[in-house]
Amino acid sequence: MSPLHVQQLRDETPGCQSGIVHFNHAGASLPSQATLDAIIEQLQREARDGPMEAGEHGAVQVEKARRAAGQLLNAPAASIAFASSGSSAWSLAFQALGPWQPGDRILVGRHEWGGNLASMQVAVQAGARVEVIPCDATGAVCPLALESMIDARVKLIDLTWLPANGGLINPAQAIGEVAKRHGIPYFIDAGQAVGQIPVDVQALHCDVLKSAGRKHVRGPRGTALLYVRPDFLQHLNPAQRDVFSAPWTADGFDLRNDARRFETSEASFALLAGLGNALQEMNQLGIQQVWEKISQTSERIREGLRQIPGITLHDLGTHQSGLIAFNLAGWDAFELKRRLGVQRINIGANGVAYTPWDMQARGLASIARISVSPLNNDEDIERLLTALKALRA
Amino acid sequence: MSPLHVQQLRDETPGCQSGIVHFNHAGASLPSQATLDAIIEQLQREARDGPMEAGEHGAVQVEKARRAAGQLLNAPAASIAFASSGSSAWSLAFQALGPWQPGDRILVGRHEWGGNLASMQVAVQAGARVEVIPCDATGAVCPLALESMIDARVKLIDLTWLPANGGLINPAQAIGEVAKRHGIPYFIDAGQAVGQIPVDVQALHCDVLKSAGRKHVRGPRGTALLYVRPDFLQHLNPAQRDVFSAPWTADGFDLRNDARRFETSEASFALLAGLGNALQEMNQLGIQQVWEKISQTSERIREGLRQIPGITLHDLGTHQSGLIAFNLAGWDAFELKRRLGVQRINIGANGVAYTPWDMQARGLASIARISVSPLNNDEDIERLLTALKALRA
Repeated sequence: MSPLHVQQLRDETPGCQSGIVHFNHAGASLPSQATLDAIIEQLQREARDGPMEAGEHGAVQVEKARRAAGQLLNAPAASIAFASSGSSAWSLAFQALGPWQPGDRILVGRHEWGGNLASMQVAVQAGARVEVIPCDATGAVCPLALESMIDARVKLIDLTWLPANGGLINPAQAIGEVAKRHGIPYFIDAGQAVGQIPVDVQALHCDVLKSAGRKHVRGPRGTALLYVRPDFLQHLNPAQRDVFSAPWTADGFDLRNDARRFETSEASFALLAGLGNALQEMNQLGIQQVWEKISQTSERIREGLRQIPGITLHDLGTHQSGLIAFNLAGWDAFELKRRLGVQRINIGANGVAYTPWDMQARGLASIARISVSPLNNDEDIERLLTALKALRA
Repeated sequence: MSPLHVQQLRDETPGCQSGIVHFNHAGASLPSQATLDAIIEQLQREARDGPMEAGEHGAVQVEKARRAAGQLLNAPAASIAFASSGSSAWSLAFQALGPWQPGDRILVGRHEWGGNLASMQVAVQAGARVEVIPCDATGAVCPLALESMIDARVKLIDLTWLPANGGLINPAQAIGEVAKRHGIPYFIDAGQAVGQIPVDVQALHCDVLKSAGRKHVRGPRGTALLYVRPDFLQHLNPAQRDVFSAPWTADGFDLRNDARRFETSEASFALLAGLGNALQEMNQLGIQQVWEKISQTSERIREGLRQIPGITLHDLGTHQSGLIAFNLAGWDAFELKRRLGVQRINIGANGVAYTPWDMQARGLASIARISVSPLNNDEDIERLLTALKALRA
């Protein structure tokens, strides 16, 4: 991506006109004006014509969003469901694998997203065990170690692909090959992957994959997407049902034969219209190009951070993502984030909860997090590094 | 409410300026301009400052909404959770009563919302039975009949208070007294009640109550609220959990001790800011005044409909709500709705799915539905009745 192209994206993005330097795209990125307009247009249509009466137009937007999500993931549109939060989407799919039995084993990486571990408590209450797949020397989940853990009691392999607290990219495809070989259900938490790196659900061999809308996809808050492999639907018995997910037939309520069995009749078509626009923009831009730009920018920033005395980088793995975890000597991560915020530089800061087992294994209580996007230009990088240099003890 | 007061409300509502006559408030009502502005303001703030960075301001709006919802329901703010759909909210609470055991009994009215019956299928798969409480002579759920059904295996009484397909108002408080006397969990689906009639969760003796945001409350699509009685929380074990509903502590993930154990970290603060504004407007207007106006308007319309040959009213019960179910001889309900829509008159039409057992008991395949609001004025009523007269065979 040329500087001119980056500038064009920035010109179309209100958050790039407001004087802030945004390096919190992994928290939530900045939507384009067109995405904002798509939301507002549907809200105004609903207020003017009646919210249900505007639903026909809204439903067209939702189906556009579904096709765009399918295109981004290399999946049929019918395998995509929308939800209002990634936690909710993942949890619905996880519960639908139940009921859990004593002795069931769930295998996860050490970097598993805390929200997923929280939802697994209900399986643990039923007698299931959550076990950690060992890491390789680089800190990534090890497919060979996974292979040696497999037995008939393993009911799920769940991978947080790009963990929240650092640049690690777990080997999702290699894990998928193990899962497929043994016929074990495989879920991927791709919250930090979709919109940042190429995601091909066929190559990954995953049965379920979820992501947020607000992060690298640049959609609105309160949106998420859930991919369910069509052949895997029969293994998922959702507890949440309504007249949309299970339409009334002569035989009673019959679950839909596509991913919409995880949706409800009520949703914000306005937010989904915005998500659809963001997904279309992402497809037009091209995820390969996005990923190359993110890689370049994040490597430049890592290089710059290494030059600043007092900064410790906390990124595991080899080829790393656009999430950069670090600490600055003498600074609490949350206080550092707050202080940069005063200078209108947005970064993130996370405690133990987001990836508790990994943070505990590494003895970390919190990390500051820079996360990059193709929207970030040279001036952003300069302002960030200059500010950090000025703050070092 | 004086005509002047109604006109003032209409002046503040974009949908009343657009030439439509809206009688689909039970599908979704028309938000005020101020509610629309509250949503858009937060969306723009997120786009400008960063979506997570705007979260602090957003969280203040959400807590305002929680207090306003508490005020409307006579409940502490901490007993209110927000969700993106009523089905989702109800289903989360219902699942949290589990695991269901063979022989468990769930007692419901004949008019139970189809979405709830669909979610109950998972309990039925586990061996629970869903049983219908008989109606009295007016067609309402009979508290005496309920009393005679109670035994130790009854695990839940669930009441759809104002059913979707007609004007019936079930005796929610009398049912609550039976539930309380026997110590049985009592859920109320108040989707058509909140914002239409006075709702006092203390007087109702309910443990859980849910409602949509988009209906009589005049909030945005994609919002719902869930009341959970504080003393009942200990009986609810939510399957959906994340770092917000179950914050990380030294002992692992600990469920919150308030209704927010049913929320997730991700939500649309913009939509909830809009819902909060709508709830505040409702509290300022006064629910007693709203209900009186709805009663007057709906009785006038019922009287008018009775004068039109070919119209059959389908409202059960005695004192009836602002939902008016009917059929016009020679017209399919959905076709009638479509035809009135061409004349810019919005009504609803429902099939069997919304209240399947009641529709089947009454031999109805579909009904047309007029639903009123304090926004409706004399001209609206006149245009509606004139149009229906012109369409009779």
